[in-house]
Amino acid sequence: MSHTVIHKGENCNFVPMLPPIRNVNTTPNNGQTVFFDKPVHIVAADAVVGKKEAEGPLGNCFRRSKEDIKMGEKSFERAEILMLDEAIRATFTKARPVVGDAQLLISGDLLNQMTTSSYVARNLNMPYLGVYSACSTYTESISLASTFISGGFFDTVACATVSHFATAERQFRYPLEYGCQRPPYAQWTVTAAGACVLSSKGNGPLVKSATLGKVMDFGQNDLSNMGAAMAPAAMSTLEALFKETGTDESDFDLIITGDLGKLGSDILRDLMREKGHELGKTYKDCGCLIYSVNQNCYQGGSGAGCSASVFNNFVLPRMLNGEYKRVAYLATGALMSTQSCYQGETIPCVSHGIIIEGE
Amino acid sequence: MSHTVIHKGENCNFVPMLPPIRNVNTTPNNGQTVFFDKPVHIVAADAVVGKKEAEGPLGNCFRRSKEDIKMGEKSFERAEILMLDEAIRATFTKARPVVGDAQLLISGDLLNQMTTSSYVARNLNMPYLGVYSACSTYTESISLASTFISGGFFDTVACATVSHFATAERQFRYPLEYGCQRPPYAQWTVTAAGACVLSSKGNGPLVKSATLGKVMDFGQNDLSNMGAAMAPAAMSTLEALFKETGTDESDFDLIITGDLGKLGSDILRDLMREKGHELGKTYKDCGCLIYSVNQNCYQGGSGAGCSASVFNNFVLPRMLNGEYKRVAYLATGALMSTQSCYQGETIPCVSHGIIIEGE
Repeated sequence: MSHTVIHKGENCNFVPMLPPIRNVNTTPNNGQTVFFDKPVHIVAADAVVGKKEAEGPLGNCFRRSKEDIKMGEKSFERAEILMLDEAIRATFTKARPVVGDAQLLISGDLLNQMTTSSYVARNLNMPYLGVYSACSTYTESISLASTFISGGFFDTVACATVSHFATAERQFRYPLEYGCQRPPYAQWTVTAAGACVLSSKGNGPLVKSATLGKVMDFGQNDLSNMGAAMAPAAMSTLEALFKETGTDESDFDLIITGDLGKLGSDILRDLMREKGHELGKTYKDCGCLIYSVNQNCYQGGSGAGCSASVFNNFVLPRMLNGEYKRVAYLATGALMSTQSCYQGETIPCVSHGIIIEGE
Repeated sequence: MSHTVIHKGENCNFVPMLPPIRNVNTTPNNGQTVFFDKPVHIVAADAVVGKKEAEGPLGNCFRRSKEDIKMGEKSFERAEILMLDEAIRATFTKARPVVGDAQLLISGDLLNQMTTSSYVARNLNMPYLGVYSACSTYTESISLASTFISGGFFDTVACATVSHFATAERQFRYPLEYGCQRPPYAQWTVTAAGACVLSSKGNGPLVKSATLGKVMDFGQNDLSNMGAAMAPAAMSTLEALFKETGTDESDFDLIITGDLGKLGSDILRDLMREKGHELGKTYKDCGCLIYSVNQNCYQGGSGAGCSASVFNNFVLPRMLNGEYKRVAYLATGALMSTQSCYQGETIPCVSHGIIIEGE
């Protein structure tokens, strides 16, 4: 019998150390990427999800789920508010012993005029900035929070976002009561809220850079086919991210997009292949991860809460245990409204990407 | 005859030098205000307005106005896009010889999912961040742009916002075709787009600080009475601004709110008086300035484009000629949606305030 002593934690080091990302921008910054040289830690994160999400393949990741889609409230909109409020307060509770109270909330959601975020902020007595880039809202808010922290303006900033299947269907497509059929290329809006607290203090994975997206529109105009519309925006930002941080797919343990779904992520693979990048097994999509094929969600999940909950409760724990050392997270958003589509417009999309590294 | 020589420019110095604002926050920042120690110049700004605005008391300030409310487009929404696009491009043209091209656009508007901003950004081929705080969007975007610049992340950032009477009435109240009567406490959504370019280089008035607002709700629930709903948010932010920058009303040549209108600004005066601040003649409201009483706009103007156009084309020129040395600009936003009001919610509001000083 061998007496080799395995030191606790050694097994976590199976991911080789990666060369540092570097700023290849000239001065002045003529690219899309900002670098956070002063540390920005993700010190706490949590999510609240609905029943369908809790029953999916990531069910074990989510400790907070709601059985009832109305969550005991009188409307779906009230339920969405309740869910976001709970996610934020749970995250604050985790962060408070480590870094104290957050000094600023940056949040956004899919409802008209972002009422969910505003109604939650009303009860929090802290400065609030509303941001909107549809399902890319979470990476936009993390980018801004990191700018505030790395620039020395605030020490601790909270980010949050939410989506709810029933409110999104009513607003963007048809009220559930109509019983409309969904086309096979449709995605299912995830019922989930996610929040995180970022700080210059404490510990946790580091936000290293943010690549701010350009608005892309390849002419798609079907409100049910978001994946195809958003894939070009993800391509644009991922290409800029690679170029401006001096990396390619081999420098990441995980490249994860927000909610392109099966169809959209296949398109992204093809588009990136044309650009000379074979994403392979490094690439995953939050919309593909959250539901299994037998849950009848067709192409997978969508909605601002999709990637926020998957990033918080699937990706971050795997960064903390060392499985992922460096992750590129690109949430993707479709920026149309029902009215713009009724008026014959195509769907402009955007994707903001961040690079996160283990401590 | 006296031979006294008046040196050109001496007469501009009639405003006495004011003591510098100071950061009275403790470390860590436990307030709402961030200070921009590295210079952030407003190097260019411009606005495009509608016919009614061009005919108002500030008509001479606006060099770009549109005779037709549809501006030759097939819909009001297309007209709004055209107006924002023109304001941004005009501002870029002014800024380009001084500081080169802007590296980032931060924009938002009142339409559902902020489609106007997204559709304009689609044609600009630059990184785009969408922000939303209703009619406080312009000061939110200037706050964020200043953070990026003063923090050293970008050199040159553009901010923009827009509102259009006909699109806002249709979305928030009633389509114009219904011919609904407006109550006497209503305001008139301003048809205007404003944009500015901020830079670490060049010259122009300096953004010195930003006081990020908390969401306030005093229980108002009438979609036509925005002034009364927003006044408490302006009070909250103005009080924090005074406290955290070590100033009071006597330290400013102008304190200007976004669009409280006549009723809302009277309420703000009363609320501030209760807090020990007599605003007096130093205080003006953009919504009160933009229309005359015989234009039948009742309490005055509102909409994100109101304070953006008045600030760009009325306030900034008076800073450049030395009439105003230090200005506090607090745009105010009402964060409800029609749906939230139909569901019985009251109206949460926010106001983000910035301090601008002449060079």
